[in-house]
Amino acid sequence: MRLLIRGGTIVNADQSFRGDVLCENGKIVAIGENLSAPSGAEIVDAGGCMVMPGGIDPHTHMQLPFMGTVASEDFYTGTAAGLAGGTTMIIDFVIPSPQQDILEAFHQWREWAEKSAADYSFHVAITWWDDSVREAMKTLAEEYGINSFKHFMAYKGAIMADDEILVNSFRRARELGAICTVHAENGELVFQLQQEVLAQGITGPEGHPMSRPPIVEGEAANRAIQIANVMDVPLYLVHTSCDEALSAITRARQTGQRVFGEVLAGHLVIDDSVYRNSDWATAAAHVMSPPFRPKGHQEKLWQGLQSGMLQTTATDHCCFCEPQKSMGRDDFTKIPNGTAGVEDRMHVLWDQGVNTGRLTPNEFVAVTSTNAAKIFNIYPRKGCVQVGADADLVVWDPTATRTISKDTHHQNIDFNIFEGMKVTGINIATISNGNLVYSKGELRAVKGAGNYIERPCFPNYVQAMGKHTQATKPTAVKR
Amino acid sequence: MRLLIRGGTIVNADQSFRGDVLCENGKIVAIGENLSAPSGAEIVDAGGCMVMPGGIDPHTHMQLPFMGTVASEDFYTGTAAGLAGGTTMIIDFVIPSPQQDILEAFHQWREWAEKSAADYSFHVAITWWDDSVREAMKTLAEEYGINSFKHFMAYKGAIMADDEILVNSFRRARELGAICTVHAENGELVFQLQQEVLAQGITGPEGHPMSRPPIVEGEAANRAIQIANVMDVPLYLVHTSCDEALSAITRARQTGQRVFGEVLAGHLVIDDSVYRNSDWATAAAHVMSPPFRPKGHQEKLWQGLQSGMLQTTATDHCCFCEPQKSMGRDDFTKIPNGTAGVEDRMHVLWDQGVNTGRLTPNEFVAVTSTNAAKIFNIYPRKGCVQVGADADLVVWDPTATRTISKDTHHQNIDFNIFEGMKVTGINIATISNGNLVYSKGELRAVKGAGNYIERPCFPNYVQAMGKHTQATKPTAVKR
Amino acid sequence: MRLLIRGGTIVNADQSFRGDVLCENGKIVAIGENLSAPSGAEIVDAGGCMVMPGGIDPHTHMQLPFMGTVASEDFYTGTAAGLAGGTTMIIDFVIPSPQQDILEAFHQWREWAEKSAADYSFHVAITWWDDSVREAMKTLAEEYGINSFKHFMAYKGAIMADDEILVNSFRRARELGAICTVHAENGELVFQLQQEVLAQGITGPEGHPMSRPPIVEGEAANRAIQIANVMDVPLYLVHTSCDEALSAITRARQTGQRVFGEVLAGHLVIDDSVYRNSDWATAAAHVMSPPFRPKGHQEKLWQGLQSGMLQTTATDHCCFCEPQKSMGRDDFTKIPNGTAGVEDRMHVLWDQGVNTGRLTPNEFVAVTSTNAAKIFNIYPRKGCVQVGADADLVVWDPTATRTISKDTHHQNIDFNIFEGMKVTGINIATISNGNLVYSKGELRAVKGAGNYIERPCFPNYVQAMGKHTQATKPTAVKR
Amino acid sequence: MRLLIRGGTIVNADQSFRGDVLCENGKIVAIGENLSAPSGAEIVDAGGCMVMPGGIDPHTHMQLPFMGTVASEDFYTGTAAGLAGGTTMIIDFVIPSPQQDILEAFHQWREWAEKSAADYSFHVAITWWDDSVREAMKTLAEEYGINSFKHFMAYKGAIMADDEILVNSFRRARELGAICTVHAENGELVFQLQQEVLAQGITGPEGHPMSRPPIVEGEAANRAIQIANVMDVPLYLVHTSCDEALSAITRARQTGQRVFGEVLAGHLVIDDSVYRNSDWATAAAHVMSPPFRPKGHQEKLWQGLQSGMLQTTATDHCCFCEPQKSMGRDDFTKIPNGTAGVEDRMHVLWDQGVNTGRLTPNEFVAVTSTNAAKIFNIYPRKGCVQVGADADLVVWDPTATRTISKDTHHQNIDFNIFEGMKVTGINIATISNGNLVYSKGELRAVKGAGNYIERPCFPNYVQAMGKHTQATKPTAVKR
Repeated sequence: MRLLIRGGTIVNADQSFRGDVLCENGKIVAIGENLSAPSGAEIVDAGGCMVMPGGIDPHTHMQLPFMGTVASEDFYTGTAAGLAGGTTMIIDFVIPSPQQDILEAFHQWREWAEKSAADYSFHVAITWWDDSVREAMKTLAEEYGINSFKHFMAYKGAIMADDEILVNSFRRARELGAICTVHAENGELVFQLQQEVLAQGITGPEGHPMSRPPIVEGEAANRAIQIANVMDVPLYLVHTSCDEALSAITRARQTGQRVFGEVLAGHLVIDDSVYRNSDWATAAAHVMSPPFRPKGHQEKLWQGLQSGMLQTTATDHCCFCEPQKSMGRDDFTKIPNGTAGVEDRMHVLWDQGVNTGRLTPNEFVAVTSTNAAKIFNIYPRKGCVQVGADADLVVWDPTATRTISKDTHHQNIDFNIFEGMKVTGINIATISNGNLVYSKGELRAVKGAGNYIERPCFPNYVQAMGKHTQATKPTAVKR
Repeated sequence: MRLLIRGGTIVNADQSFRGDVLCENGKIVAIGENLSAPSGAEIVDAGGCMVMPGGIDPHTHMQLPFMGTVASEDFYTGTAAGLAGGTTMIIDFVIPSPQQDILEAFHQWREWAEKSAADYSFHVAITWWDDSVREAMKTLAEEYGINSFKHFMAYKGAIMADDEILVNSFRRARELGAICTVHAENGELVFQLQQEVLAQGITGPEGHPMSRPPIVEGEAANRAIQIANVMDVPLYLVHTSCDEALSAITRARQTGQRVFGEVLAGHLVIDDSVYRNSDWATAAAHVMSPPFRPKGHQEKLWQGLQSGMLQTTATDHCCFCEPQKSMGRDDFTKIPNGTAGVEDRMHVLWDQGVNTGRLTPNEFVAVTSTNAAKIFNIYPRKGCVQVGADADLVVWDPTATRTISKDTHHQNIDFNIFEGMKVTGINIATISNGNLVYSKGELRAVKGAGNYIERPCFPNYVQAMGKHTQATKPTAVKR
Repeated sequence: MRLLIRGGTIVNADQSFRGDVLCENGKIVAIGENLSAPSGAEIVDAGGCMVMPGGIDPHTHMQLPFMGTVASEDFYTGTAAGLAGGTTMIIDFVIPSPQQDILEAFHQWREWAEKSAADYSFHVAITWWDDSVREAMKTLAEEYGINSFKHFMAYKGAIMADDEILVNSFRRARELGAICTVHAENGELVFQLQQEVLAQGITGPEGHPMSRPPIVEGEAANRAIQIANVMDVPLYLVHTSCDEALSAITRARQTGQRVFGEVLAGHLVIDDSVYRNSDWATAAAHVMSPPFRPKGHQEKLWQGLQSGMLQTTATDHCCFCEPQKSMGRDDFTKIPNGTAGVEDRMHVLWDQGVNTGRLTPNEFVAVTSTNAAKIFNIYPRKGCVQVGADADLVVWDPTATRTISKDTHHQNIDFNIFEGMKVTGINIATISNGNLVYSKGELRAVKGAGNYIERPCFPNYVQAMGKHTQATKPTAVKR
Repeated sequence: MRLLIRGGTIVNADQSFRGDVLCENGKIVAIGENLSAPSGAEIVDAGGCMVMPGGIDPHTHMQLPFMGTVASEDFYTGTAAGLAGGTTMIIDFVIPSPQQDILEAFHQWREWAEKSAADYSFHVAITWWDDSVREAMKTLAEEYGINSFKHFMAYKGAIMADDEILVNSFRRARELGAICTVHAENGELVFQLQQEVLAQGITGPEGHPMSRPPIVEGEAANRAIQIANVMDVPLYLVHTSCDEALSAITRARQTGQRVFGEVLAGHLVIDDSVYRNSDWATAAAHVMSPPFRPKGHQEKLWQGLQSGMLQTTATDHCCFCEPQKSMGRDDFTKIPNGTAGVEDRMHVLWDQGVNTGRLTPNEFVAVTSTNAAKIFNIYPRKGCVQVGADADLVVWDPTATRTISKDTHHQNIDFNIFEGMKVTGINIATISNGNLVYSKGELRAVKGAGNYIERPCFPNYVQAMGKHTQATKPTAVKR
């Protein structure tokens, strides 16, 4: 299977240049000007377009069992929708129940994911602790290519990791050369605020952000960062949504600590006024955690991307349709948390990031693909247009437009938080493992075509820590 | 009983002026130039001196049962030593054991304190939680004049308050109009680091600061502050010892939050090199929590006082003699934590604060006395030289000197962390409740002369919070 | 002349207490509960009210010759309006033209001010430099009670002080024990931006804020602060209007530097949308420098007051009526800069500061009166209700209301930037030098009744600087 | 001319991988594992070594006429020394005298540089302003490949650029698509402090840092950044030496502003104690501006590199030997400013940056080569090991050592500020334009072999600015 992308400008995170790209057997095998097409090669015309690495969404939850229901988007429909929007790989989450065998959960998720149309990988959540968990982390890291472990600091009484779990898991991750990730919200405060808000008679979706104000995230972000600092392990904060959490990341990075921050496309462009929409379903459709934030936070998050304090963009794609959301009609704490976006992220980022002058095209590539590949150690196999890399590519037309809508999107959900946004600059073609899976509106995703991607430990990108050097190594005093 | 202080310059937090001070029956009854002495009045010559409010040490632990022993300084010897150094009031701590009845503990401490030579009051620690604790807080606040509750975020497995306790106690304090105070160190991290350090074969006092690095304090300070913010209650951080904790306070105050910080005289002038002293006993004598900090932190703490980000100075006076410290000879985690200083604080603060130009004399009064009186709501009864106030006064000679030493101090401990420091600027007389209890080296402290001071809730000084205003009051959306 | 204020609660910056106040010959002569009225004394009933120090507005420009016209409010009408609003003292500005003899200018302003109805003093601007200016500063400081010198960093080609003037004047002020004040805007950038904006065809008042964005102020604030730091002199920034300038102050104060910040009532509550008002006169009426700022800055300024980073509130009262403003109808750079407010400041501060919970009543007194008195060294003669102080007082009814309007205000200007604001909490009586000059709507201001107030150098409040201590004194190396 | 580097690990800024590198006619023509050597190719064995892009020193002053003398290192000796240390390109400075024709100066420097042994380019200083300068900037940018203009904010009375020059030049640079660079020190303050220090009788080199404290740099850095912000032009700060300047950069970058910071190898590892060396010549040898800073700043600068707030490392290589330095024996202000280092930078950076764990090898490449190439728009021709790039390479042995010394270095100066430092990790070979010019201690630099490198305007890397977007474009109000 050969495919030649002709006439485009290749845009990588570090440089842009004119060049054709030849793909064969799922790999990029040649890059150069005026490459001649091998016989039988499919030709993609990229004239006037950019050729970029396919997007990597490092935060999705396909078919997640959560809050008494299951996310409506499965691994096939979800990865297919991603391909339509230029995202050629996802990193999803294995979330064991407390006391559940972690490897059992891992295998369950692997099985669910086999129908994926694009490449995928998993973070694994640590939701409880004992020696068996400690052992399982090693097995996952060394035998199954898991190099990142997730910790929920929220969801008290369910999957919340308290300080004791965090400290133990972080230490174990250091030993294994894995990176730790956290959902940063103080679960105790959320719990108490939910009770307070309900007690005030506020039961609608507007109670959701009241019970999860930005400081609740800022506190947890700071705590996780300090624990990671003490435990000397790299840390990645998912869905940084507010200035308070960004500031915690910034403070840490300025001391040289290896802390990374992810921001969701939604948090960059939507504010918390949505929760006061007079239509319950509309308000409820926006319920996710952390919630959308007051005006002002969005600009700060963009600045975080611009300054390099935030490195990646994601979606936390987790779909629940209106009948599911309605489970919380009388109590906002029972509305299943989640919004979609895997199909829209790249478009929103370009339109609001590049067209506004906030980001260069190279920076766009970095924050939608390359940085995630580096942090999670699949670079340059992913995240880069270079010979030898996987042929996961997008052909991007900076002049083409799309009006985002639930009526036309491929996502398996009845709502789109970006509804009506007209974006300029979209992928007119997507190549996954060397195959043209999306072209000018036609989606040719193939169920099961995606591969599970192993991610080795000890990534170059995050391995250095300034702390444990000989100079500062603690020693006993001879007396 | 009448006493006339003649010829001095009165120095209050807000102004300085020439004036004599007449005391009668424990109160200041007149202030003015050239007051005539009533018959029988004792005369104190303050020529060339300043007359200032007596010091308030808001953080002491007299005869504290702790870590398997009892602090060597009792309420009599401790308050007497304070008087020698110009401190005329202490606020000590009632620390119930987990599950102990809080009122029972309160009465126990009250009994112990009856022998005090100077006025005293108590903060009460909340070390566990259930409805009985909630009720006891009300009784203490409304019947016993307790307006401040203490929470230890360290000491896992003993008196540590986790987030659940903090949130519940903070909310209760808000209802009562009390202020919350915290010992800010992440107990989980301390516990884990202690194990790590011991596992590295480090058992000496040098292991103490290794197991409690500044970020462990900074994390807890930030967490307590955010919880207080959410719970909308004023917060006071005891013994702020490092830049990280100070920064957390500063960030909060800059948003208008009512957060206060206390700093110990020791943390202002001593660095962590003491723990590497080749003499075990010397090193162990400095073991307290938080520990002394690396060079650099001291200057930051001074700047905190100068900028008003820190408001009070204290000592955490808690004496253990060498035989007691020796309980931890083979394991630094077993060394009883504590150092002395109630007698030396005012001298160290003047010498290093005023003589260096960091603080004006008025600011000295503010940080050694007035601010504590305001925060803990005994101002202007204490903390101010004005008619009607308690006659707790010092006559301060800015040219007199003292060389601090365990050999000459009045504290009941065999070590002095300020040993050998020659200070210029000391009290040549101390007046407590209108009595001349210290004069030119002679201490006339009277056992039991001190009174228990009730402190009412809802202090003017801390009552306003910018948050819960009508404008921002959360409301339900009508749908 | 005697006057007894009966039944009120006295509110000072440091405390509140019940008490009557007896005034005689312009001074407070007694404070106490249930004072009996001397014969002939006028009685003011303060039942249910607070008795506070009269306001001090440290920044006004009465009858200022500026931009080709003269401010419409003279010293009589202006101070009278102040009394109606509870402000009993102003500090105005002597502004010599470049090359003008400074003492000549000083005497000119003194003459203009003789008709003042309330007490007044002057800052003197340094607008050029040579040895005669250097000498005049000494004369003003030592013979005329001037302890503050003003520097305009804006107004290129007119009164702008460049770095050379700043450095020389700051050094001289240090020698004299005076405080330096600055109008912080980078005059070069303003000049260039004015040309750019005009070149874009923008000639209306909306061009005013475009040519003076917040960073232009932030830059100058930071520069002045650093120069003051190097020159080791206390600095006071007038009309801090934006987050950028506040941040510069905050950074400096956190290092212990003696930097003070003033904020205008207008900047606290008005945003820059006024410049886009479709009515030219309305937009032009708001033209002042620095301009009103984008939404968001106001909340930051409030936080600056709450945290103590800003100490004083003022108005920059400088009145130009519509015919004067119309000089700039075709070119916004020709609109005379200035707005009014001396009558409204206290009301706006209480309503938006105290009623919202941002400030306590004691803090209100501090930021409207006491802090200015301390910084400019007239405390406790002014800024405090105590025996011996000037009898400049307000009786404040926290429940009384006023709707601010140009139709009812006493200010000599045809516009009010607070038009229509209904405030709760106003002075029902004002006492100036012991005379009841305003009572329940009736203004009895007396032309010429105000006194010039000398302000001595070397204020206690600002005299300490942590820098030039023995420890850090630079020394030559012996070689 | 062909050369094959065999058996190494190629280390680029973004990735590391095993590969041989084939060079031909000055270019890299092939990269791959087990490349076969073309006939006649020279073979360099890189077994166990890394193959990295040659260093770019973006800040040198070869044979600079300055302070009455001329730097002892000429373009040949200087570039040769650079090659010995792994630096294969320099960017030097054309510095016209005020009023001198800028193109004339440019041609003068071009002539001087023709003898260079390695590639070179020039920044051009703007030291005065009129329309001819404005025109010359265009000529330089469009005809001579100059895309960066330098501004000295220090050196009052000589080449200092005041705000008016800065604003005009910055605006012109924006029009041309060039980047502005500044030497950030407030020249007025330096001038005044020099007089003060001399007046105190301090004439030795210890007076140098006293007259240029960190805040003097911090102030200027902040000012230049704000002017660049207003003028909407990218800015590059040379030799960032202190926390104050770094903080100014950090604040700006966090708002998304395109500001870049350079740090010198010397400032990273040397503190200001050198100026108090009892040997005058030793102290004087360290005189450069900005001076070495107090302990503590060094660690902050490292953190700046780690966090990405600083992007490049340089040397400000400017050699004056002892007889030249002696011109200032009686007056430190007359000591020619400058130190060497072009040969040592890479070694110091690896030893103190990589060996300590502060930087990964990839980050080392970024800060010694790649980032400079990107900012100054010669990437990927320089700064990257990829096919098509210039064959400027180093073979780096992380285990090889060197003890830095004036006795063995190739630099034409009698002093080395890194004297005695034993570094581990050095280049064992340097390839310049495909030629092996340094190999295991043998330097084969060829006079005149270096090329002048043109640098086009509008670099991809710095072209986006978040500010001048459609959304925020200022508009006139229709009235």
